[in-house]
Amino acid sequence: MPRTDPARILADLQAMRDFGRFKTGVHRPSLSEPDVAARRWFAERLEAAGLEARIDGIGSVFGFSRASGPKLLTGSHVESQNKAGWLDGPLGLIYGLEAARAFAQDPETRDLGIDVAAWFDEEGHFGSFLGSRSYVGLLDEDEIDGARNRYDGTPLRDALERAGYGGRERVTHEPGRHVGYLEAHIEQGDTLESTGLKIGVVTAIVAIWQYRITAEGAQNHAGTTSMARRRDAGLALVRLLGAIDRRFPEIAGERTVWTCGRITLEPGAPSIIPGRAEALFQFRDADPATLTRLDAALRELIAEANRTGPCPLTLEVMGQSTPALMDGRLQDCIEGAAGGRSMRLPSGAGHDAQYLARVMPAAMLFVPSIGGISHHWTEDTAEEDIVLGAQVFADAAERMLRGA
Amino acid sequence: MPRTDPARILADLQAMRDFGRFKTGVHRPSLSEPDVAARRWFAERLEAAGLEARIDGIGSVFGFSRASGPKLLTGSHVESQNKAGWLDGPLGLIYGLEAARAFAQDPETRDLGIDVAAWFDEEGHFGSFLGSRSYVGLLDEDEIDGARNRYDGTPLRDALERAGYGGRERVTHEPGRHVGYLEAHIEQGDTLESTGLKIGVVTAIVAIWQYRITAEGAQNHAGTTSMARRRDAGLALVRLLGAIDRRFPEIAGERTVWTCGRITLEPGAPSIIPGRAEALFQFRDADPATLTRLDAALRELIAEANRTGPCPLTLEVMGQSTPALMDGRLQDCIEGAAGGRSMRLPSGAGHDAQYLARVMPAAMLFVPSIGGISHHWTEDTAEEDIVLGAQVFADAAERMLRGA
Repeated sequence: MPRTDPARILADLQAMRDFGRFKTGVHRPSLSEPDVAARRWFAERLEAAGLEARIDGIGSVFGFSRASGPKLLTGSHVESQNKAGWLDGPLGLIYGLEAARAFAQDPETRDLGIDVAAWFDEEGHFGSFLGSRSYVGLLDEDEIDGARNRYDGTPLRDALERAGYGGRERVTHEPGRHVGYLEAHIEQGDTLESTGLKIGVVTAIVAIWQYRITAEGAQNHAGTTSMARRRDAGLALVRLLGAIDRRFPEIAGERTVWTCGRITLEPGAPSIIPGRAEALFQFRDADPATLTRLDAALRELIAEANRTGPCPLTLEVMGQSTPALMDGRLQDCIEGAAGGRSMRLPSGAGHDAQYLARVMPAAMLFVPSIGGISHHWTEDTAEEDIVLGAQVFADAAERMLRGA
Repeated sequence: MPRTDPARILADLQAMRDFGRFKTGVHRPSLSEPDVAARRWFAERLEAAGLEARIDGIGSVFGFSRASGPKLLTGSHVESQNKAGWLDGPLGLIYGLEAARAFAQDPETRDLGIDVAAWFDEEGHFGSFLGSRSYVGLLDEDEIDGARNRYDGTPLRDALERAGYGGRERVTHEPGRHVGYLEAHIEQGDTLESTGLKIGVVTAIVAIWQYRITAEGAQNHAGTTSMARRRDAGLALVRLLGAIDRRFPEIAGERTVWTCGRITLEPGAPSIIPGRAEALFQFRDADPATLTRLDAALRELIAEANRTGPCPLTLEVMGQSTPALMDGRLQDCIEGAAGGRSMRLPSGAGHDAQYLARVMPAAMLFVPSIGGISHHWTEDTAEEDIVLGAQVFADAAERMLRGA
């Protein structure tokens, strides 16, 4: 049975925190200077653990096991959201690294292989899940050619070149090599914290259905245009968002979430009636039937508004992903390793596991997030929970490999 | 009886259109190159009409009558809104200039004086009614020191210096010189057009009560934060705007208008629950009791939301102006001159006349706007309406001066 080393785990996590430290969190955008340095450091740690380390042409870091027996792929990511938390990404990497070290130190597990992957740009500074999509064969060269940093517009090709990864081959999935994929992550919610349980066994990664809703009105003077005559695009959008707010709770699933993250009124001046208005709206659920029902309701509310209102509303689908189911046997392995301290729950956030699930059985393990805080520099997890999670991760990995 | 010259009026208006022409309109921000050139040109036209022309230290252009008899002050503005209409401003200037010329040409009116003023920055590129407020004594040096161009941040002092107006004295109101103030403007609405009448006699300039409404929530992950746990500042704001939309029609006056011109959600990303949201909201009416009633209702709706909602809403007053009543006798003079083709109506837009009304009897005359379009380059008025308006303006001016 593998024995993980709490001091070593915490020291490695703290070391990663130094790459782009921001208050108690980190600011480590993909291919920024601290990010490239962290990738180099992580590759060295993998090599030191006896793995064959490599950074590929899309910037993903790999550590390949030299063990003779069956292998499990583990993974997470190096980069962070802007000015965000220190564990979102690194926790899963260090768990994989520590499992490989613990396996190698124990004669009983020495032959079982742990591969470790740090998937490039899970946080989406340049695109959407570029590293894991590249690995499973869902990223073509054209998309890489066109990808740019969403904040400063730097072409991804230039950034890869500058990091020294330009022209390298991309590592892709080798059928038959792995019994499955295991990814650990902080929960980013407060379900574990509020129940007192320590391990989340992820049942599915929810789908995100994302839309742009646009209202077309008539820009005019806010003083001289009577209420009867105006066609206020902003008001049309506010009314639709109000209708969604009343309708969705009636038809949503128990864990459905929906969000309007951005509203833009044009031209956006205090004394001008908005001639155009736009909202970004999304909902998430793990159940396809619920997603379909909400989509239909949204279209119905817009059609209803268009029958009466003076500002035509249009709906543009930005993305409609499919829920990714986690493998049942691998879930049992985590649950068994957790010894009664676990609960099953879906992941409301997207993770690389949703792409790995397309080519092999995949599973995810959550540890508690203090206050459920995520994507903020105050994000944190209690040390004892980090340490416990690493041991459950290694035990679950052994079960997965033994059962194969 | 003064005889205005249609060809001369239209030629002067077309000449002004050439300063910063944009499609069929103009782009002539205050103290931009075309604006400074237009000021120089207008001063030359005033001088050519026999007036004593002068551009003062705040950039207002004046033409002072040399007539011996009573004098009427007329005025409007040179600069335009960005990429906006060609008549918004110039119409009133050329009407004043033409009245001065027509008076001078007729022995019967030669002794009656028309002063012409082009008030600086009525359109608010650097501040709020800077020229007319300077003239009536409501603009101190500190405000000028602090004023900056709202688009590019250029200090007003620098822009005045570059235009050549730096260090000049500011012209201020000379008590006793004028029998009153008359300003002509396009209606900017469609009331005249829809009634078929040609002249609007303004009864009052409405007050604008303007607010910033802020909601404070908790920024969090849009996937992992349950609906029950989230504190969505954007949703709180949408709910308030919906409540205003339901409540205001029940208590507003017949001509009240209200507008939300800008909504900002922070951080404004599709997958982040807004932690902060802000709206700019205003309403306008000529009746103080209506304004007070709407202000109370707005505060009540916010208090109600704060009793139940998880995101505290706060209301910040950005401005609460006073309705400016136009002088009764001067209104009668316009109505008399219009010969049955006029109607009385309030102005929903602000005009320099609201500040002139503080120091002398003031009046405004509207001509029709095609389609009620305003603050857009397609703004226009039929030539026959422009020409008729100029004659009514001159006739009304004579009545105002004779009755004094």
